[in-house]
Amino acid sequence: MSNHFADRLIEAVKKKGNPICVGLDPRLEQIPSQIKEKALKSGGSPTKAAAEAVLEFNKGIIDVVADLVPVVKPQIAFYEIFGHDGIWAYQETLKYAKSKGLITIADAKRNDIGSTAEAYARAFLGEVELFEGDQEVVMPMFDADSLTVNAYLGWDGIKPFVEEGAKYGKGIFALVKTSNPSGADLQDLELKEGGRIYEVMGGLMDSWGDDHVGESGYSLVGAVVGATYPAQAAELRKIMPKSIFLVPGYGAQGGGAEGVKPCFNKDGLGAIVNSSRGIIFAYEKMEKFDEASYADAAREAVLEMKKDLGSVL
Amino acid sequence: MSNHFADRLIEAVKKKGNPICVGLDPRLEQIPSQIKEKALKSGGSPTKAAAEAVLEFNKGIIDVVADLVPVVKPQIAFYEIFGHDGIWAYQETLKYAKSKGLITIADAKRNDIGSTAEAYARAFLGEVELFEGDQEVVMPMFDADSLTVNAYLGWDGIKPFVEEGAKYGKGIFALVKTSNPSGADLQDLELKEGGRIYEVMGGLMDSWGDDHVGESGYSLVGAVVGATYPAQAAELRKIMPKSIFLVPGYGAQGGGAEGVKPCFNKDGLGAIVNSSRGIIFAYEKMEKFDEASYADAAREAVLEMKKDLGSVL
Repeated sequence: MSNHFADRLIEAVKKKGNPICVGLDPRLEQIPSQIKEKALKSGGSPTKAAAEAVLEFNKGIIDVVADLVPVVKPQIAFYEIFGHDGIWAYQETLKYAKSKGLITIADAKRNDIGSTAEAYARAFLGEVELFEGDQEVVMPMFDADSLTVNAYLGWDGIKPFVEEGAKYGKGIFALVKTSNPSGADLQDLELKEGGRIYEVMGGLMDSWGDDHVGESGYSLVGAVVGATYPAQAAELRKIMPKSIFLVPGYGAQGGGAEGVKPCFNKDGLGAIVNSSRGIIFAYEKMEKFDEASYADAAREAVLEMKKDLGSVL
Repeated sequence: MSNHFADRLIEAVKKKGNPICVGLDPRLEQIPSQIKEKALKSGGSPTKAAAEAVLEFNKGIIDVVADLVPVVKPQIAFYEIFGHDGIWAYQETLKYAKSKGLITIADAKRNDIGSTAEAYARAFLGEVELFEGDQEVVMPMFDADSLTVNAYLGWDGIKPFVEEGAKYGKGIFALVKTSNPSGADLQDLELKEGGRIYEVMGGLMDSWGDDHVGESGYSLVGAVVGATYPAQAAELRKIMPKSIFLVPGYGAQGGGAEGVKPCFNKDGLGAIVNSSRGIIFAYEKMEKFDEASYADAAREAVLEMKKDLGSVL
């Protein structure tokens, strides 16, 4: 089997029979109280207790979705908010998801240039070299399968991620057309040479992926394209046929199954659809579940989403 | 004294008599061997040893520059590369710099929307609420004075940072015109309505800062404008007169004192100039210093930079 990121992802989507990505955005205030109580009793600092609660919550979700979905996407802001303890929970979450056979997307939207971008790329996708000589240690750090990035800085800012991706069978998803209303502030402006900024960004991603296409026909350079703008998604699908789209905005942000349809190619592949709150905190919306059965609620929400997406794909 | 971020920063620049920002980018391979040896002997994991080495190195730099410069800017990639241990060193570095009276810029180029951007804003600039009721804890987390951000996502992605900034006397620096060659891939494209993308981005920052101008006349919404493009910096200075520019690219990236001059307003204020490697690893370039005297070399490099900038300002 190919170790190319896109091939691994497409294979996982086919195997699970759906393109669902579960967003692990564990807002502490929505985590069931019994998990928080237990974490608080373990005697660590408040941030360590928060990190432990987040990790236990995530493990509960991962356990019930691992056989159903191909991908999970922990959003790092909800971990970083607890400082280094939160980052510990982030690393452990990625590790646990991997141990359950899931493909991981580190949603961190990293961006910088030169050796700084290289440091991020090594940390998230590659390996890190520590110390020298007899004391040298080479180890993966976050060891995510892929990372979201922001390409405002141009090719310099993306190249290190593409290089690490090619070396380690990993991938990236660059922001192209985001799901939020004011994404249009910049992304929708028209250029003198024709087209809008998001279309130019899409074209750049397509060309940056040219040398990194797997057997599946997809490249390791993916794109973030919101479910809330289906017409624009359809245009982008033409501009960047070999990029896998990571599609946020389904569910909580108002994008439905019809909205995500244009993100897919005619082969029914080429996109993964993320849902965060709508799955992990489904227990808050579903009458038959309570806090203690949050994982069962998440599983049911995944099955509903699978059915919903299946109706249009 | 005003607690507004821009006022605090301008005051600090006046007090120290220079606009220098020392970039704390502690690449492990360039940290003096005696510091690494000591950290390795302390018995922690390799990542903990790396984090301890980074922190000790930074403290050595901070101790010798605190009386000379107004600002330090740790770049988070060089900490995140050691996982949660690195983030511990990042938090401790910010805390130590603050204890020495320095203004801090968390260089993390964060970007996201809605509650995700809020989580970043609270973590870096504001306060974090943990748990509820009797167990509630409200605490600052990174407690930086300011944060670099990327505004590709539009106002939704910037508003939470501006709001936390206004509440806590903190600020942001948004990427406008970056110092790297391929920044032009996107930033220099011409728009149908006139102007280039970086100019539009500059105009957005200027307007987003309108409601947040301090007594100094500067707003809490600053901009990253590279020293390597002086002509563009001059244009941007006109477009965004009340934004403080954070200017990378001086020294190692090839921008000299003449290049940074257009980043300043006629009052000689309105910009801070960053140097990272050129200061913290000055010992590698200066014959009269060795590893053990890396801090002395850094101090001399700051004094040289002060003189160089003074010749044009």
